[in-house]
Amino acid sequence: MKKQSIGIGLMGLGVIAGQVAKVLIDKADALAEEVGCPLILRRVKVLPQDLSRPQAQAMDPQLFTTDADEFFATQGIDIVVEAIGGEIPAIDYLTKALLGGKHVVTSNKEVIAKHGVELLTLAQQHGVGLHYEAAVGGGIPLISPFQHDLLANKISGIYAIINGTTNFILTRMARDGMDFSSALSRAQELGYAEPNPRDDVEGIDASYKLAILASLAFRSQVRPEDIYCEGISRLSSRDFQYAQELGFAIKLLAIAKQSDESIEVRVHPVFIPEDSLLAKVEGVYNAILVEGDLVGKVLFFGEGAGALPTSSAVIANVVAAAKDVILGAGSRARWGMQPGKDIKPMSEIRTRYYLRLNVADRPGVLAQIAKVLGDHQISISSVIQKLADSVAQTAEIVIMTHPAQEEAMQQALGELTHLTAVNEISNFIRVES
Amino acid sequence: MKKQSIGIGLMGLGVIAGQVAKVLIDKADALAEEVGCPLILRRVKVLPQDLSRPQAQAMDPQLFTTDADEFFATQGIDIVVEAIGGEIPAIDYLTKALLGGKHVVTSNKEVIAKHGVELLTLAQQHGVGLHYEAAVGGGIPLISPFQHDLLANKISGIYAIINGTTNFILTRMARDGMDFSSALSRAQELGYAEPNPRDDVEGIDASYKLAILASLAFRSQVRPEDIYCEGISRLSSRDFQYAQELGFAIKLLAIAKQSDESIEVRVHPVFIPEDSLLAKVEGVYNAILVEGDLVGKVLFFGEGAGALPTSSAVIANVVAAAKDVILGAGSRARWGMQPGKDIKPMSEIRTRYYLRLNVADRPGVLAQIAKVLGDHQISISSVIQKLADSVAQTAEIVIMTHPAQEEAMQQALGELTHLTAVNEISNFIRVES
Repeated sequence: MKKQSIGIGLMGLGVIAGQVAKVLIDKADALAEEVGCPLILRRVKVLPQDLSRPQAQAMDPQLFTTDADEFFATQGIDIVVEAIGGEIPAIDYLTKALLGGKHVVTSNKEVIAKHGVELLTLAQQHGVGLHYEAAVGGGIPLISPFQHDLLANKISGIYAIINGTTNFILTRMARDGMDFSSALSRAQELGYAEPNPRDDVEGIDASYKLAILASLAFRSQVRPEDIYCEGISRLSSRDFQYAQELGFAIKLLAIAKQSDESIEVRVHPVFIPEDSLLAKVEGVYNAILVEGDLVGKVLFFGEGAGALPTSSAVIANVVAAAKDVILGAGSRARWGMQPGKDIKPMSEIRTRYYLRLNVADRPGVLAQIAKVLGDHQISISSVIQKLADSVAQTAEIVIMTHPAQEEAMQQALGELTHLTAVNEISNFIRVES
Repeated sequence: MKKQSIGIGLMGLGVIAGQVAKVLIDKADALAEEVGCPLILRRVKVLPQDLSRPQAQAMDPQLFTTDADEFFATQGIDIVVEAIGGEIPAIDYLTKALLGGKHVVTSNKEVIAKHGVELLTLAQQHGVGLHYEAAVGGGIPLISPFQHDLLANKISGIYAIINGTTNFILTRMARDGMDFSSALSRAQELGYAEPNPRDDVEGIDASYKLAILASLAFRSQVRPEDIYCEGISRLSSRDFQYAQELGFAIKLLAIAKQSDESIEVRVHPVFIPEDSLLAKVEGVYNAILVEGDLVGKVLFFGEGAGALPTSSAVIANVVAAAKDVILGAGSRARWGMQPGKDIKPMSEIRTRYYLRLNVADRPGVLAQIAKVLGDHQISISSVIQKLADSVAQTAEIVIMTHPAQEEAMQQALGELTHLTAVNEISNFIRVES
């Protein structure tokens, strides 16, 4: 029997869910034409406080329920759209929806990063689809390219600016010479950073997204806890000055690389050449560079968050799910379900390093430092030495190294802190080129 | 009955078709796992001269036929992959394949730009898919985003560097101060330009690709002949010098804009701000910036041509078509089939202009020029005047205008050529910002 309509159940009524509801209503005709029958919003699971939101005022109050059981008991829901965010209770809701044979669309990066494999297994068992394009990169197509467009490729690397908050902060620090806390305050004033900014600033948000992208790209499960994660709060305006002097930009990159043996996944600040495309990505924008054996380098750029872009991805997923409902097909997409490849320990990665040290301003100090590095097979590619404080008789030394192993660098850093001439290791930042 | 295998018929054995055959063989296991059954190359339509190509040597000679009728009579072909290029005989082959109920994958921009609507209608009538991701932008996902990921958006604009040959030439002119013909020769030496470079250099190739993208994005048929088209051969190294001085890059852009009333489509050199992302796209790379009401700005970047990237897109399409064969579904994709919106005449577009004039070096000349422009409601935003030749007593004047209508500018240019003080209108270039 031909479907007369597709029923949608919406979970949440925050800014994203509210915008999704708005698009379903405002663009109902175009969406019906695309799908072949109307998409009808049948129920909205809300919290009591959601009912006072402006988006609630514009909708039929009959649609709302604060009771999850009542929501799931609603007749005629084919697709559940989850936009409440966070791990709990979202995981329970998604599980329940899939067990009930509903197709699921979610914008929830945390749930997908932590529970993607089990949810996808459940979806396959029940012949339905699990769609999560909006979980990474807002409206930028990222999940879909890995699932469809790039699937003939062996992906060797992903280099991604996937957290708009930190990219905004880094842009202000680089451009305006702001220090970290001023730039963070500015981001908070503009609504680009949460009152509690920890997940963004410490790279946790980026690590959820990288777990999803790497799992898809490498077809091998990467969990958030597999990812080395370091935030941007240690960066100072002096690092940006030196970076510019040396021809680099500083970005928080989410990096995933695949060799035949293992997978390397890490989120941390990096020096990247200032003429690279990623270096030009400013403000809250996101960009994801992918390297494949056939396609070479491809880059996707756009707004990585916000209600409008995110709704673009959610609605695209809803339309895809609706077409599956009509065809009676499950999702065509696959997660990386193979037994996971080994994750390379952070100690084994190799990069170049930027090193900034506060030292005693006296002869022979550089020689001592160079000896420690040399003892660990770390060779120096360039040195800048500046008088930092003539009263305190201290100088600042900036060292760029050739490629070295992380373990050796960590050991060298440990020894450097014990040199009496070294007052402080002010910072060290890995370099990608 | 479950499909045991999917049969592929390949038309052509040039560099792209050869690479597609190679991937089908080299990655057979991974593709079979993705699709659910093996993809089997059943027949290859070749030209006699193809048989001496290296890629032919590596393949079973039984696969080859030079006879199109024999090719189409081959049993067990589910998907026809066309990679012979050009309008004729490709259009006949594609028509025959669709009439015979075969799913079609093509990398042929010319056929799709000129005959996309009729081919898609045919595909829908016969319940099969027509896939053409490789027709635009090599391996960069571009067709698929418009068909799927961005479909909730009303697209307002496309700004695209979609011809690698011209972007390579412009990059060399900008970076190395080369003139057009030297840069073209260099491109030909490197195999980036054809011996007869007309289609690339005059923007024809870009106009085919823009016709496809605009038709998809606006869901309204745009034909190649609707597109105003101007190549890069008029550009001189002096234009690049002034562009840099004024803070711009020069790119060949394919531009499509949509208003409620009409569609604006044009391919020509433009000044774009040097700090824009498109200005940073160098060499043979392509980049496509899309503006949508929900997604905001998204940009796709990568290698726009070449056998490897193109095979990435072709194989992705083959896998999608294979999944449709298994599901017994036609393509889920749609072309813009609505009656076409009006195409805005070029005379009605509005942009800023860069104008370079060779004039007599005497007082009052600028006033005369400014008067002509003013008479046509064109106001000047900046002027650079340089002594071009002290012997001939000529000077060069560079004018940047505020936004003006093309018709007014063309009339003003006509009048300027009649001023005795104006020796030559050396160039005029539109500005996008």
